[in-house]
Amino acid sequence: MNVTHPFLDLNGDKLREECGVFGAINASDASAVTALGLHALQHRGQEAAGITSYDGDRFYSVRGTGHVADNFSTEEALAELSGHMAAGHVRYSTTGGSGLRNVQPLYADLASGGFAVAHNGNISNARTLRDEMVSRGAIFQSTSDTEVIIHLVATSRYPTMVDRLVDALRMVEGAYSLIVMTPEGMIACRDPYGIRPLVMGKIGDATVFASESVAFDVIGAEMIREVEPGELIHVGFDGSIETLHPFGNIKPRPCIFEHVYFSRPDSVFAGQSVYSSRKSIGVELAIESPADVDLVVPVPDSGVPAAIGYAQQAGVPFELGIIRSHYVGRTFIQPTDGARTSSVSLKHNANRALIEGKRIVLIDDSLVRGTTSIKIVQMMRDAGATEVHFRVASPPFAHSCFYGVDTPEREKLLAARMELAPMREYIGADSLAFISIDGLYRAVGSDKRENNAPQYCDACFTGEYPTPLTDFTASKEKAAQLSFSDHKADI
Amino acid sequence: MNVTHPFLDLNGDKLREECGVFGAINASDASAVTALGLHALQHRGQEAAGITSYDGDRFYSVRGTGHVADNFSTEEALAELSGHMAAGHVRYSTTGGSGLRNVQPLYADLASGGFAVAHNGNISNARTLRDEMVSRGAIFQSTSDTEVIIHLVATSRYPTMVDRLVDALRMVEGAYSLIVMTPEGMIACRDPYGIRPLVMGKIGDATVFASESVAFDVIGAEMIREVEPGELIHVGFDGSIETLHPFGNIKPRPCIFEHVYFSRPDSVFAGQSVYSSRKSIGVELAIESPADVDLVVPVPDSGVPAAIGYAQQAGVPFELGIIRSHYVGRTFIQPTDGARTSSVSLKHNANRALIEGKRIVLIDDSLVRGTTSIKIVQMMRDAGATEVHFRVASPPFAHSCFYGVDTPEREKLLAARMELAPMREYIGADSLAFISIDGLYRAVGSDKRENNAPQYCDACFTGEYPTPLTDFTASKEKAAQLSFSDHKADI
Amino acid sequence: MNVTHPFLDLNGDKLREECGVFGAINASDASAVTALGLHALQHRGQEAAGITSYDGDRFYSVRGTGHVADNFSTEEALAELSGHMAAGHVRYSTTGGSGLRNVQPLYADLASGGFAVAHNGNISNARTLRDEMVSRGAIFQSTSDTEVIIHLVATSRYPTMVDRLVDALRMVEGAYSLIVMTPEGMIACRDPYGIRPLVMGKIGDATVFASESVAFDVIGAEMIREVEPGELIHVGFDGSIETLHPFGNIKPRPCIFEHVYFSRPDSVFAGQSVYSSRKSIGVELAIESPADVDLVVPVPDSGVPAAIGYAQQAGVPFELGIIRSHYVGRTFIQPTDGARTSSVSLKHNANRALIEGKRIVLIDDSLVRGTTSIKIVQMMRDAGATEVHFRVASPPFAHSCFYGVDTPEREKLLAARMELAPMREYIGADSLAFISIDGLYRAVGSDKRENNAPQYCDACFTGEYPTPLTDFTASKEKAAQLSFSDHKADI
Amino acid sequence: MNVTHPFLDLNGDKLREECGVFGAINASDASAVTALGLHALQHRGQEAAGITSYDGDRFYSVRGTGHVADNFSTEEALAELSGHMAAGHVRYSTTGGSGLRNVQPLYADLASGGFAVAHNGNISNARTLRDEMVSRGAIFQSTSDTEVIIHLVATSRYPTMVDRLVDALRMVEGAYSLIVMTPEGMIACRDPYGIRPLVMGKIGDATVFASESVAFDVIGAEMIREVEPGELIHVGFDGSIETLHPFGNIKPRPCIFEHVYFSRPDSVFAGQSVYSSRKSIGVELAIESPADVDLVVPVPDSGVPAAIGYAQQAGVPFELGIIRSHYVGRTFIQPTDGARTSSVSLKHNANRALIEGKRIVLIDDSLVRGTTSIKIVQMMRDAGATEVHFRVASPPFAHSCFYGVDTPEREKLLAARMELAPMREYIGADSLAFISIDGLYRAVGSDKRENNAPQYCDACFTGEYPTPLTDFTASKEKAAQLSFSDHKADI
Repeated sequence: MNVTHPFLDLNGDKLREECGVFGAINASDASAVTALGLHALQHRGQEAAGITSYDGDRFYSVRGTGHVADNFSTEEALAELSGHMAAGHVRYSTTGGSGLRNVQPLYADLASGGFAVAHNGNISNARTLRDEMVSRGAIFQSTSDTEVIIHLVATSRYPTMVDRLVDALRMVEGAYSLIVMTPEGMIACRDPYGIRPLVMGKIGDATVFASESVAFDVIGAEMIREVEPGELIHVGFDGSIETLHPFGNIKPRPCIFEHVYFSRPDSVFAGQSVYSSRKSIGVELAIESPADVDLVVPVPDSGVPAAIGYAQQAGVPFELGIIRSHYVGRTFIQPTDGARTSSVSLKHNANRALIEGKRIVLIDDSLVRGTTSIKIVQMMRDAGATEVHFRVASPPFAHSCFYGVDTPEREKLLAARMELAPMREYIGADSLAFISIDGLYRAVGSDKRENNAPQYCDACFTGEYPTPLTDFTASKEKAAQLSFSDHKADI
Repeated sequence: MNVTHPFLDLNGDKLREECGVFGAINASDASAVTALGLHALQHRGQEAAGITSYDGDRFYSVRGTGHVADNFSTEEALAELSGHMAAGHVRYSTTGGSGLRNVQPLYADLASGGFAVAHNGNISNARTLRDEMVSRGAIFQSTSDTEVIIHLVATSRYPTMVDRLVDALRMVEGAYSLIVMTPEGMIACRDPYGIRPLVMGKIGDATVFASESVAFDVIGAEMIREVEPGELIHVGFDGSIETLHPFGNIKPRPCIFEHVYFSRPDSVFAGQSVYSSRKSIGVELAIESPADVDLVVPVPDSGVPAAIGYAQQAGVPFELGIIRSHYVGRTFIQPTDGARTSSVSLKHNANRALIEGKRIVLIDDSLVRGTTSIKIVQMMRDAGATEVHFRVASPPFAHSCFYGVDTPEREKLLAARMELAPMREYIGADSLAFISIDGLYRAVGSDKRENNAPQYCDACFTGEYPTPLTDFTASKEKAAQLSFSDHKADI
Repeated sequence: MNVTHPFLDLNGDKLREECGVFGAINASDASAVTALGLHALQHRGQEAAGITSYDGDRFYSVRGTGHVADNFSTEEALAELSGHMAAGHVRYSTTGGSGLRNVQPLYADLASGGFAVAHNGNISNARTLRDEMVSRGAIFQSTSDTEVIIHLVATSRYPTMVDRLVDALRMVEGAYSLIVMTPEGMIACRDPYGIRPLVMGKIGDATVFASESVAFDVIGAEMIREVEPGELIHVGFDGSIETLHPFGNIKPRPCIFEHVYFSRPDSVFAGQSVYSSRKSIGVELAIESPADVDLVVPVPDSGVPAAIGYAQQAGVPFELGIIRSHYVGRTFIQPTDGARTSSVSLKHNANRALIEGKRIVLIDDSLVRGTTSIKIVQMMRDAGATEVHFRVASPPFAHSCFYGVDTPEREKLLAARMELAPMREYIGADSLAFISIDGLYRAVGSDKRENNAPQYCDACFTGEYPTPLTDFTASKEKAAQLSFSDHKADI
Repeated sequence: MNVTHPFLDLNGDKLREECGVFGAINASDASAVTALGLHALQHRGQEAAGITSYDGDRFYSVRGTGHVADNFSTEEALAELSGHMAAGHVRYSTTGGSGLRNVQPLYADLASGGFAVAHNGNISNARTLRDEMVSRGAIFQSTSDTEVIIHLVATSRYPTMVDRLVDALRMVEGAYSLIVMTPEGMIACRDPYGIRPLVMGKIGDATVFASESVAFDVIGAEMIREVEPGELIHVGFDGSIETLHPFGNIKPRPCIFEHVYFSRPDSVFAGQSVYSSRKSIGVELAIESPADVDLVVPVPDSGVPAAIGYAQQAGVPFELGIIRSHYVGRTFIQPTDGARTSSVSLKHNANRALIEGKRIVLIDDSLVRGTTSIKIVQMMRDAGATEVHFRVASPPFAHSCFYGVDTPEREKLLAARMELAPMREYIGADSLAFISIDGLYRAVGSDKRENNAPQYCDACFTGEYPTPLTDFTASKEKAAQLSFSDHKADI
């Protein structure tokens, strides 16, 4: 059978989280703390970073492309960011050079004073709201969905900042974990479903918020608790902490993919260690889909915990059959003659001496478009593996995410295009299995996805989205989370 | 008598025009034409430059600090600026690193489509308008007065872009020469007094607009005429040209300082060659205030044409007694020992062999704070001049400009602080004279400033401002043209 | 007992290899192949990189600080490096900004034509030779020991390049794996002991040389064999390959630390898979020094293979108790208040949920100064480990290396300062053990270090150096491999 | 008659001096003084700059492309250049990116200690000497002729640095003004003919040397005298000053073109004010070649002093008929349609209102290839001039310079290709005249070029070179001053 590879030119085969956020208030060096916290969240967004601070009088912003360390590691960089309150953001830029004005935190001078916001998530009715506001004369400067929130706050008629923000958030749909700064203090809040993560910590007199608990470990802060789904926490400059649940009683559905891939393994999400979740996924996978092999080989690095779990459960040696380079990130120009290489081989190399003559099972966290998997399987065969089995630590990824994850359009998702057998043939493995949706729920410690009341957002596997998808429904031909860009600027 | 020098630390003693603008429509390489045109206007603003283009579908913007040549001379830079319509802007940045979002053209997505504007001038009621709009929920991204115009256009209820722009401009006071781009074409307009210049030209099928005619010389375009004070010209993509005079019949008062200093000598302004105006000023000055000297020495380069006129009238040799370095622009750190230098001596050096033992008259274009003049006079004495007379090719500069020229606060203007005699003593000259206001009017070919109906804006000399100064009046303690900045960002 | 920590401010606790080399001849895109090959050797030197090419007429060089990908991934970068022969080098710069002229390949115009050389190793009599040559009027431009070889070649009286190079190498002591380019072709050679690695491969018509076999995997080349210790291979532009053994019959002693730490695990060194060597070291270590623990935890990433071996032998679960960040490399400024962090915590974070309440054994590749180990042990205790045992996959490192490895002065080596018990106390572990020298030899597949005839250079453990250390002996107070720098330049 | 323009694509039509040098000893901030001094010499070399300093222990060097102000105006830049002795150099880089290793001062560690040299001029037997030295095993790192001097010093057998330098200079031919630094102090010297300038000054305890006296004006130093042709001055750290004339009694012949074009008008060269020389040339030219015109128009800026002299002598008004932009330096990409521009029109613009309907005479300093002159004449006609006469303030430039001036090959010199009449036709002027060689000598105050014993080097006009041209003679097909480059490197 002739399998065509219509999109092998795509050079990335991993999902990309859109952002990480961090905030600190009542810290004497708020921007230095924020820089370190953001650095620990770098895996959530590697293409741009920004920090905004407030010194009791003015707000200051510095934003740049590249890593946190490239922009915020020096005294000079932080000297411009004075004050006891700061918030920061890391993100993937969606369009090449044109992104700096989209780098968060976004800031606006409102009649009520300065307003800065850092947002992880995606507003699924942003375009609809924006079109309405523009038709009334509002002017948007960025193409970010987050700016919709600022305009809603700016035109709210409520007196206090907290009330104005609640008023604004009642109009938006989708996923948001927000850190907001105003002259009255810091507000952290999470959408009613708690789709994206947000945690609260303490270090000395300072209160800190972050997308993941690992940021607290790095700065030596103590984790207090998760910000609850639908909760809004206001911290004042006097240290006062108020909490509201303005959206009523909604059953939370945090993103299950945080366990599978997004969060760092040393973070705790939805009450469970991510490392432990991943190992358990490996254990469940070994039970559901065993393989008669000599070695369990992880696709590094994200497949490692599941592979350890799989190997322990299966009683087969865990071995580094693929060595990952630490020095990736750039594409090299290709020699025109004999030498062939690829972004995959720059990143991964077969441990030939180990693989040769062995039957192996590869463990990867997910299979999105399959482009990398084809190459990895072939690399194992080239290195002499006699059998190559493939196990995936998540169910088939068949539906786009509209909540802040940069997913391909649905027609590019391998699992949306094929059944299991053609997928196996497509990637060239001797066998292929995904963990079941129930197995995944077991692994993350949930008592299962029964009675049509899932404890997690698992829409990427099931298509059951917790919120309406207003923009997407209004305009099927445009993916709802695409940018609004009619104007392309270099800032 | 003991003369104190309270502000000798100020390192600039020239007025700085705020901007130059250029636009081209129906040009196959609109952004390349615009880059060259802006380059010819570089003297009107040297700290930042921007170009926005429109290709029939999208607008594109590139902005940067530094000169036009630094940002827009290469193919790569212009490759991002496709389309048959483009407009550009050069400016002085008012605040260090925080200015990129203030670099023009400004752009906004309005309900009616994209809207870009490049502005030379200053809106003297911008803060008042802005405060009103913010209180109704409008969000400003820049601290530029120009953004007020965009918001007024965005909220106008008129149907066409031209009507909306007229509606907006009826609400603003002050000086503006604007180049606006919309999906319907390019609009060039000038405030009712025509304070700042704007000219219209033609090259092939393209229509071009520029702050000064010299921009047309450089690109090989033909000058058609000045945009008239109070005129609004709309050029369509079909080549159609419509013109309006929506503000009624107001006697124009273009800025007389364009003749004295701002415009390039090879430009034509208000119907007269600037070089010829300056020479005539020198002639009038020689008639009004002769000096018994051996040499006429210009303070280069802006004093040269007046010095040529002065020398011809006086029958005294014109000589380069001061040599100007072509390589200025940066301040060097100072050696701690013997070596003393200054920004003046880096820029100007006495032609000692020529000066020694001579009586000279120095001709400079203006005397603002006097800081440079002190040093120049001293430099001449150090070089052995036996007498140093000083003639100024403009009347005493005693009033701040609120129309787009970056002037010191009034209390720093030498002519606002002292009469003629102390000024002479302050700068250390043997004699000092300014051209009279009537002499200046004669030199620029006007039949004089009689009947209280001046043909020029000469407010900097007379204090008679053509428009209300709403912001300044509302808030005496803040100079009206200061920025609105409550937020300091690096973009 | 009171243990002082006199050098805890040192921020690096790993040995650093000085270089990696790569060369390609008879390749149509020699510089592109070289860039990819160097990239695969990036772990051998991360601070600067250079490539020199030859197009049959001229030599071309590009050198830069930073990674290979920063300097050589684009078409523009390689466009300057035309020709069918190229060689490259990655290195640690020894002195801040002053290094660009020390970045290799070094090049000189000799009477016999152009001569370029890339060198991995260290000439242990370089200073002595240099002093002699300078006293005769030779001028050195770099402070690199490698330049000594060029001067020796330049003044050799032999007729052919190969003879001149052999003549030069007879005068030098120490470690060298060289790739030399001349108008006659490429010469690869290795010092008589073969201390540093060098392998030979083939891809199409091209012959390639590299420090490690992994470079061949990345470019899709086939490994032919190691360049033998004391062998000199000349490859002509006609594809001819000549080989010489000009230094007679000397028992080789390649560096055993390549197995322990330097080489990538997917490389083959001295005939054995490095990954397999490291796993075997873990197995031997588990036999020699068992620990009664719940988990085996590697210090990532270099400790992982030994930890896998240890865990398999001990029958104890292998777990990722320490999570390594992918985004390290820069030092952040420290917040002044509560938040404490360190370069260790930016790089490593405890997997707290896993560690808490467990007895663990940490496996690290080596213990040099101990500064990191102290912090890692403490981090485990802070995360709740009840017992922390420490096992080291190399013998005590008690002697400086003079063969191209950047080691601390001997008095800073922990094992040169203390016996085992104080070391254990110093790092704060419950137990501490190193693999024995015999265990290490067993693990790397050698029939042992008997009869005083070691098969490897193990001088860092034993102090038995294979060559004289002329410079070091001549000047005890200066470490022989320190630079000659009397002049500090920025290029 | 049909005149072809075979080289109109050449974009520069001015001669370019190769360098300027500056040195300071016994100055507490030697590098800051040197930076300012070099800045005043920027017109002598605009593409690269370097400073080397000595602090009694080590030498420090910083070199960079671009202007002095770009590299040496900040405290950070100078912080690396400590010490009481410093010397610097400005130059034109001859080959694109490959020049940094050629940027001076050059430095070498000699057996006698550090040795740094900054050189203005050109060694006309450099290639011959270099070939000899390379054949004996010497290694050259730069392609600069200056490095020959260093190698000659390195291999000299004399005991003191002064003797070694004299020994070296006895072997070189050509033009050199050198500033040398050794651990014993600073040596300034000038070749026996004194072809290139060098002056000596004093500021406090410091002794300073510079290519032109203007550098002393800028730093506030006092000029003492010229370094004499053939003189060598050694200044010690104790302030001692020794002077030698080791080359015997040779009649000096300084470069007459320093008067015509290279030196700044406010410098004094060979005992005469350069401004005064240029004005006198204009006077002589007006006597020799009058023109019946309405206006005298200089080609700015270098033609201005001669034009003033011409106008005063002729009794015709001096007017700025061509306005020069201050913002040149870069080439813009050209629009493809109507808009035409050129590097000439970016730099020069006709003052149309002045020119129209007038008969003018243009005064330029020299006519080398004629490419600019063609365009300037055409520009005047396009602006409406009824007659355009052209007068050149130097004799026909018909011979290449081998003494440090970057001249075109002889066959590209207009005066080497044509007689006067075709030249006039070629540039399109109504009349054309050059000053006579005797007129030029009169203008520079010399009693004439009689008895075959010229007081200046005027070889570019006469072909009578003061020194042998060994390299040029040895290899007619290669211009002697071309670089030795067989190797192209980016540093």
